[in-house]
Amino acid sequence: MRMIHSIQEYKEWRNNVSSVAFVPTMGNLHEGHLALVQRAKAEADNVVVSIFVNRLQFGQGEDFDKYPRTLEQDAAKLRDAGVAVLFAPDERELYPNVTQQYHVEPPNLQNELCGVFRPNHFRGVATVVTKLFNIIQADVACFGKKDYQQLTIIQGMVRDLNMPIRIVPVDTGRAADGLALSSRNQYLSEAERTQAPELYQQLKWVVAQLQSGNQHYTALENSVKSTLSSNGWVVDYVEIRESGSLNVARVGDKHLVVLAAARLGNTRLIDNLECHL
Amino acid sequence: MRMIHSIQEYKEWRNNVSSVAFVPTMGNLHEGHLALVQRAKAEADNVVVSIFVNRLQFGQGEDFDKYPRTLEQDAAKLRDAGVAVLFAPDERELYPNVTQQYHVEPPNLQNELCGVFRPNHFRGVATVVTKLFNIIQADVACFGKKDYQQLTIIQGMVRDLNMPIRIVPVDTGRAADGLALSSRNQYLSEAERTQAPELYQQLKWVVAQLQSGNQHYTALENSVKSTLSSNGWVVDYVEIRESGSLNVARVGDKHLVVLAAARLGNTRLIDNLECHL
Repeated sequence: MRMIHSIQEYKEWRNNVSSVAFVPTMGNLHEGHLALVQRAKAEADNVVVSIFVNRLQFGQGEDFDKYPRTLEQDAAKLRDAGVAVLFAPDERELYPNVTQQYHVEPPNLQNELCGVFRPNHFRGVATVVTKLFNIIQADVACFGKKDYQQLTIIQGMVRDLNMPIRIVPVDTGRAADGLALSSRNQYLSEAERTQAPELYQQLKWVVAQLQSGNQHYTALENSVKSTLSSNGWVVDYVEIRESGSLNVARVGDKHLVVLAAARLGNTRLIDNLECHL
Repeated sequence: MRMIHSIQEYKEWRNNVSSVAFVPTMGNLHEGHLALVQRAKAEADNVVVSIFVNRLQFGQGEDFDKYPRTLEQDAAKLRDAGVAVLFAPDERELYPNVTQQYHVEPPNLQNELCGVFRPNHFRGVATVVTKLFNIIQADVACFGKKDYQQLTIIQGMVRDLNMPIRIVPVDTGRAADGLALSSRNQYLSEAERTQAPELYQQLKWVVAQLQSGNQHYTALENSVKSTLSSNGWVVDYVEIRESGSLNVARVGDKHLVVLAAARLGNTRLIDNLECHL
C-alpha cells in the first residue's frame, strides 16, 4: 500500500492504473469502514481510501479538535485489507487558501434532520466530497448507510451535477448487540455503552410496527421519543421518511426509513433502519 | 462533425477518443466563438463545442426567451471550423427535474460588478459549467476574456474545487472599430452600433492613463462614467480591479483590468481591458 499526502503525487499514481473504487473517511477506522473497503474491492481493480478530518463540516462547539486521529493504526488496518493507496492530505493541501471559496450547496434537505442541529454540515460534506472526487478520479465510491442523510445528499449531488462516478451504498456495520459502529462510540462511558443499543432497538420496534401495517407515523415517532427521553436520552429527532428522497413520509409509501439522533451524556449517536413494504 | 443531443451518446463517443478541448457556448456563434475554437484545436486532438442556452443564468426580465437560437447556422460554422462534436442537449437532458437542486456557489465576487445587476447569474454559470465539465470530460476548456468576471469565477472554481481541467483564457475578438464581439450586438440599432465602440475607446483611455502613472482610480472611473452618461449611455459600472483576483485595485498594483458595463438603448454591453504595468 502506498501512503500519499500530495495531490500531485496521487495524480501521477492515478495516471498509471485502471479502475479505482474510493472510500472517503475521516480515519479512526473500525469494522464499519473495513466493510466499505471490502465492498470497494469487489467494485474495481484498486481501492483508494482517503483519511481527512474535514474542518468544513464541523460546527462551532463540535468535536473537530478532539476528533480521534490515529493515522498509523488506520494505515496498518488498510494495508492488511489490501488497499492500494491511502490518500492522507493535510489541511494546507486541500485548503491552500485556508478558507474554501466555492461551495457545493445542497437543497433544503441539508437543513432538515441532522441539518437542524448541524448548520452548514452537509454543505461542508458536499464540498469536500466534490473536491475528493475531482482529485481521486474514481469509477465508484462506497458510502455507508449509517450516515443515511449524507448518503442521500451525495447521491443527489452526483445525479444533479452529472458527476462521473457511481455511488454504492453499504449496509451499516453493527456490534453484536446491534449498536451501529461509529468512531464516536468510544466517547461512551461503560454504562452508556451498555445502554446505547436501545436506539437500534427502538428503530427495530418502529419497523416492526410499520410492517404490521401501522401508518400513524407521528404517533410512532412520538412514542420512540418519549421512551428514549424517559430513559435519559436527549433526543434530537426521530423521523419516518421516504427512503429514496428523504421526503416526509406519506401514508401509503412503500419505501421508508426511520432515522434518529439522540444524545447519551455528551455523545451524540445517530442510526437508521430502512423498511420496504 | 457529430451533433450529439444526449449525455449517454456523448459518453459513448468520449470513451473512444483521446484528448478533448471544450468550448462551452450559448450558440448564435460569431467570430469571437470561432477564435475560441481555433485556440481549442491547438490544445487537444478533438474539439467539443456545446450549445445550450442556460435558463439558470438568466434573471427575471432578462432575454432568455428571445435569446437568439440559430442551431443550423451554428452547426455549419462549427463543421467548417473542424469541430469534432457539437453537444446540443435540450433542457430536459440537463435539467431532468426541471429545477436544479444542487448549486455551485461562488464567493462574494458573484455579487459584485455584473453580479450587482444580475443576481444569481454567476451561480447559474458556475453550476451549468460544472455539469458540462462533468459530462464532457475535457482536458482543457477555452473561455473568452470578454466575460472577464465569468472567466475569473470559473478559474477560481476549478482551482478551489480541484476540478481536473485546465482553463485557457482567450483574448476578446473585436470588430474593426474595436467593439467587442457579442451576440447582443445584433440588438443595436444602426445609430447605436455606430456609437457602441465608444465603450472600448474609454477603456483604452483609462489604460493609457494607468500606463502613464495615473493611480487616481476613482477619478478615472468617474471620468469615464460621466463621459458615457453625457453621451446617452446608462452606466452600470466602470471599475479598475486587480486582474488576477478581481479584488478592488490598490495603489501600486501592477496587474490591473478596467471593466465596464453600460446600456445603449435596450442593449447592455460589457467590455474590459487588461493593463500590466
